[in-house]
Amino acid sequence: MQVGVIGIGLIGGSMAIDLKKRKFADRVVGVESEQLHAAAAKEMGLVDDLVNLEDCIAESDIIVVATPVSAAIRLIPQILDKVDKQIVTDVCSTKEKINEMVHYHPNRKNFVAAHPMAGTEYSGPWAALSGLFDGRAGIICNAEDSDIRAVELVKSMYDCLNMRMIYMRAAHHDVHTAYVSHISHISSFALALTVLEKEKNEKNIFDLASGGFSSTVRLAKSNADMWAPIFSQNKENVLTVLDTYIEKLQEFKKHISDYDEQGVRELIYKANKIKRIIR
Amino acid sequence: MQVGVIGIGLIGGSMAIDLKKRKFADRVVGVESEQLHAAAAKEMGLVDDLVNLEDCIAESDIIVVATPVSAAIRLIPQILDKVDKQIVTDVCSTKEKINEMVHYHPNRKNFVAAHPMAGTEYSGPWAALSGLFDGRAGIICNAEDSDIRAVELVKSMYDCLNMRMIYMRAAHHDVHTAYVSHISHISSFALALTVLEKEKNEKNIFDLASGGFSSTVRLAKSNADMWAPIFSQNKENVLTVLDTYIEKLQEFKKHISDYDEQGVRELIYKANKIKRIIR
Repeated sequence: MQVGVIGIGLIGGSMAIDLKKRKFADRVVGVESEQLHAAAAKEMGLVDDLVNLEDCIAESDIIVVATPVSAAIRLIPQILDKVDKQIVTDVCSTKEKINEMVHYHPNRKNFVAAHPMAGTEYSGPWAALSGLFDGRAGIICNAEDSDIRAVELVKSMYDCLNMRMIYMRAAHHDVHTAYVSHISHISSFALALTVLEKEKNEKNIFDLASGGFSSTVRLAKSNADMWAPIFSQNKENVLTVLDTYIEKLQEFKKHISDYDEQGVRELIYKANKIKRIIR
Repeated sequence: MQVGVIGIGLIGGSMAIDLKKRKFADRVVGVESEQLHAAAAKEMGLVDDLVNLEDCIAESDIIVVATPVSAAIRLIPQILDKVDKQIVTDVCSTKEKINEMVHYHPNRKNFVAAHPMAGTEYSGPWAALSGLFDGRAGIICNAEDSDIRAVELVKSMYDCLNMRMIYMRAAHHDVHTAYVSHISHISSFALALTVLEKEKNEKNIFDLASGGFSSTVRLAKSNADMWAPIFSQNKENVLTVLDTYIEKLQEFKKHISDYDEQGVRELIYKANKIKRIIR
């Protein structure tokens, strides 16, 4: 089996490593439009070969689109135009817009919309890791629109990556990821901006940064080219969650302004319930 | 040397462990008003003995006040009323209000205002850890108001805990901790509240929670009795930072609403500068 990975960054690169190492693929080829990333991926041996898009489509059994979602939404219909028996899948963090783009494509059944929920705050081929997906959730959306054998093949690929699969509607996926992933990133970017603005004047402020700060600000290192299109494509859900988040901050602000410690305490008691979920 | 620790929680308990183990103290006694915490501290052997406040003050060479800041602000002047040569220090996360409370106390020179910047999101004696302070920053505020030998003794205590000491004004301390610690906690509490509110209706949302979410929401497990008084006592600074934080979120909201991906990208590029500071 040949796997073609389009976009050899954190996700594409990590898949390439383990699909070859764990023998799901005999051969992994990559397509990478950024010259530096392509050269690094080659030097690091992440793929067996770098090829052009046409050859990747023509020669691979599975084509994994692992680009930012803005590029994926253009690429996936173009790739579907050219496939015969090849299976196409993606790894993008928003699913509803992609789903709409391919819904009436004559080769829709060759496409499986997927989202392996794994990552780090780093990006590029040098961020690729063996074991990145182990034990994490992998999502397949709108499986009924895909050929059943296509879904089975993609599932077997994620089985090889030790993911636990969850099936859901694209629209649900986008609501849930807005809550558990997209808002975390915005909260972390905004925290970094807040503290960096202060730091301009106060050089030593970071001497005091403790582990708690590092933890909440970690995601602020994440890649702009990946995240800006995610927020656009999931605009409605992200704005809904962002409004709720700002409301909660306003509640803190009000209680603190009023010296209402009991009010603050009750907000914290409620927030503490996250303990039963995140260990 | 006998060290008396008032409040055997995460911080007091961790100090008790390492000050004894590393032979700074021959004997560590504890004062703990919560019965369950006292019984657990005794059972876990965190201190050599549990004593009452009067005996702790009378018999100890250094008295470390490791209670929430709301209790500390009452306790410290009461303890100073009763000291002769004993040194009193605290570990609280806000310093300006405490400083004001003791400024004209006749035994002010026996007191050293300190803040070891270490911790976890857990609390209580069962959260105490050996090595908690190793390599972290320890702050001493308004050292010129303390007897020089008192400052040296407290510094030698923190040297034993492997902390790197920083000296600053209480007012500066409170500004800086608002930026690098207090706002992180509020951002995390608000994130937990946002997602928990959604979860009421959508039971499976947390199946999708990835490492990024766990990291940003980690501090939301923190203790209400510790944090509510911190926000009160550092009210002005916390509200200033909170306003800036909400403004940054509003900037994201505006660019996302306008489908202005370049605007979002530029905010993220700026936020990414946190990379040079947090590794």
